[in-house]
Amino acid sequence: MSATTTRELVEIDERRLLRRLDDLAQRGALAQGGIYRALYSPAWSSAMELVAGWLKEAGLFVRRDAVGNVWGRIEGSRGGRAIVTGSHIDTVRGGGALDGALGVVAGIEAVTSLWDRFGRSTRILECVAICEEEGSRFNTNFWGARAIADRLEPGEADRVRDADGMTLAEAMRSVGLDPATAAGAVRRDIDVFVELHVEQGPILEDHGPRLGVVTTIAGTAHLEVTVRGQPDHAGAMAMTRRRDALLGASAMTLAIAETAVRMGHPAVATVGTIAVEPAQVNVVPGIARFTVDARHTDPARRTELLTQIGDACKAIARERKLDVEIRTLRDRPPVTLSPRIADVLRRACLAAGMEPRDMTSGAGHDAQVLTAAANVGMLFVPSIGGRSHCPDEATTADDVVLGTRALATALRELAYQM
Amino acid sequence: MSATTTRELVEIDERRLLRRLDDLAQRGALAQGGIYRALYSPAWSSAMELVAGWLKEAGLFVRRDAVGNVWGRIEGSRGGRAIVTGSHIDTVRGGGALDGALGVVAGIEAVTSLWDRFGRSTRILECVAICEEEGSRFNTNFWGARAIADRLEPGEADRVRDADGMTLAEAMRSVGLDPATAAGAVRRDIDVFVELHVEQGPILEDHGPRLGVVTTIAGTAHLEVTVRGQPDHAGAMAMTRRRDALLGASAMTLAIAETAVRMGHPAVATVGTIAVEPAQVNVVPGIARFTVDARHTDPARRTELLTQIGDACKAIARERKLDVEIRTLRDRPPVTLSPRIADVLRRACLAAGMEPRDMTSGAGHDAQVLTAAANVGMLFVPSIGGRSHCPDEATTADDVVLGTRALATALRELAYQM
Repeated sequence: MSATTTRELVEIDERRLLRRLDDLAQRGALAQGGIYRALYSPAWSSAMELVAGWLKEAGLFVRRDAVGNVWGRIEGSRGGRAIVTGSHIDTVRGGGALDGALGVVAGIEAVTSLWDRFGRSTRILECVAICEEEGSRFNTNFWGARAIADRLEPGEADRVRDADGMTLAEAMRSVGLDPATAAGAVRRDIDVFVELHVEQGPILEDHGPRLGVVTTIAGTAHLEVTVRGQPDHAGAMAMTRRRDALLGASAMTLAIAETAVRMGHPAVATVGTIAVEPAQVNVVPGIARFTVDARHTDPARRTELLTQIGDACKAIARERKLDVEIRTLRDRPPVTLSPRIADVLRRACLAAGMEPRDMTSGAGHDAQVLTAAANVGMLFVPSIGGRSHCPDEATTADDVVLGTRALATALRELAYQM
Repeated sequence: MSATTTRELVEIDERRLLRRLDDLAQRGALAQGGIYRALYSPAWSSAMELVAGWLKEAGLFVRRDAVGNVWGRIEGSRGGRAIVTGSHIDTVRGGGALDGALGVVAGIEAVTSLWDRFGRSTRILECVAICEEEGSRFNTNFWGARAIADRLEPGEADRVRDADGMTLAEAMRSVGLDPATAAGAVRRDIDVFVELHVEQGPILEDHGPRLGVVTTIAGTAHLEVTVRGQPDHAGAMAMTRRRDALLGASAMTLAIAETAVRMGHPAVATVGTIAVEPAQVNVVPGIARFTVDARHTDPARRTELLTQIGDACKAIARERKLDVEIRTLRDRPPVTLSPRIADVLRRACLAAGMEPRDMTSGAGHDAQVLTAAANVGMLFVPSIGGRSHCPDEATTADDVVLGTRALATALRELAYQM
């Protein structure tokens, strides 16, 4: 059916696309470099206003939902369930200009271009700027996508706090949202969600081509490991009599990375935070506490990775006469995306003269949460040096344009069916 | 001369000694266990009031000096330069009941018993509770002893801050002290300073005897090591492409400890604090920063230890393609105590029927600073399990009594000369 009607790569306004990415990158820009748009912060509000302005300018019907996701809508001539594109507006602390932002800006550019060139869609076509994905401010994440997919936990907004002790509910009220009505964000009428995103890894850059279609998103486990030894005087306690918790944690940190290296791609394991007690220059650490982020796209290999990490920590603790406690903070299984939407995305890439690479995503994405509410597809463009979650995150302008045109082409097939 | 008059071990009031140690341990006791008497805090003021009360009760002339050290004085019948005993009143955060406290309480007990039994001394005899030694609240230490020894730095009280941003000068004013008059604490009339202290290490417990005379105090270097790699997405960046600053810091932490182990006693090296940036569970650490505390009693070996630590860090950084920067925060050479006072202490131990062990101290002490102002001696009693700077810090009652009697005996020789 529509497959034959969309073999032509859709044109977009390249200069507008790139200028808007630059404009959005100013919202939350930090003096020391990088960007921080924390959920419900002034920088976040400013970015959301910018996005809402672009949607209005395009002539879309704009609304903010009950948790602050911003939507722009074209009522399709034939109604039915909606075709949606977008990504998240928030960033990690000191993040880059593309993670989330690309999918938001490219989605608006694609829908605006389709509207300008082809008029009203047959299907309902929507852009969304999702309020939160990164979990950078509050000890929770995928807040926006989970609200859409009806996956918020009862009382979550009152329970979850930021580093200053403010609850998510209080933060919502600070931007004029009512936490009691959060369920109003649920959408049961979405057919398709398509997200363009930077790869955030080096595979497309190292091996090509310039477009990737995501088939699976890795399952992420977050662990908290607490190592308990014995605090002692750093000057007076003999080296051989110590039970130094940080020496244990250091050996574990090295072993955890080695476990993932040994298992090979796409296994990854990262110790991203660490703290010791009593944290004094002249006291042997009695407690060391660190987090582990471990991922794999294959459920069985992922379980194996977690088992090996646990075993390595326990063996080191035994050897060094330390106690170790491993707590699971989060445990999300791998998610398979829609093969049907992947085919649509592949055809769009072929329209650009390119056979895309089938990819797994090591990073988590709104897309994985929205699989609970829609048929989901995801398109990757290369990240220079594979860098992301840092100020150096970048993609060439050519790749940004190419990805956006492929996204528009896929949306044309999805929303402009005869 | 006096050597022949003091061969008898001086009696003390054991029950009063032990009860006062218990009473002092209540001041600054933490709900979770351990003690924290931070300089110029309410717990500190409360402890100083207790001490001043004991000194008054003994009939000594009591005064608080310009930085808050509390002194009790017996005017000797023949005047001259003073014989002083004491230690510090402050503790590390979550410290024990003896570090500092033993020297203060035992000093008061010894002087009180001498006064009760033998009347007025021939020499001026003083007890001192030194206001600060540990450096737990402010980013400085030996504040009290340096004030006595005229070793405060110009403007130090206005420059140095606690974790809440309060300056040392502001903290002084909060307890009624005037930072502008700090120089009033300088003493140029001290002949001898003798300090009783717990060993804080396991040597006396492991090898005996129950008394040690300190000949040298180790030189302490504090380094700050900053490791710079590359922050990356913990899910998307391949393991083999990372420049993880924490992996580098972990390898360095292990290598630093190994360097001291290889050099052997009394070399020690400790990583006591560590922090990473951006410190997010799902971001590869781009920066890791840690401190090193390294000590040796032999100046040449100490230099060698620091060189080896620096070389190890640089080699690991090279191997892992990381940058490393090593900054010296503090560099104190080893200090030799007075051989004359060591002989006095040895005779006091012999009066207890015990040949003491000559010891080096890995821990720093007020005594080392006071070598700039007096002839200094230091006596150690065992630490159970070698534990210190922790709630479990303990010494048997028998050893506390023995150490106090030996101290009193030494003070008798020093201050009751015919």
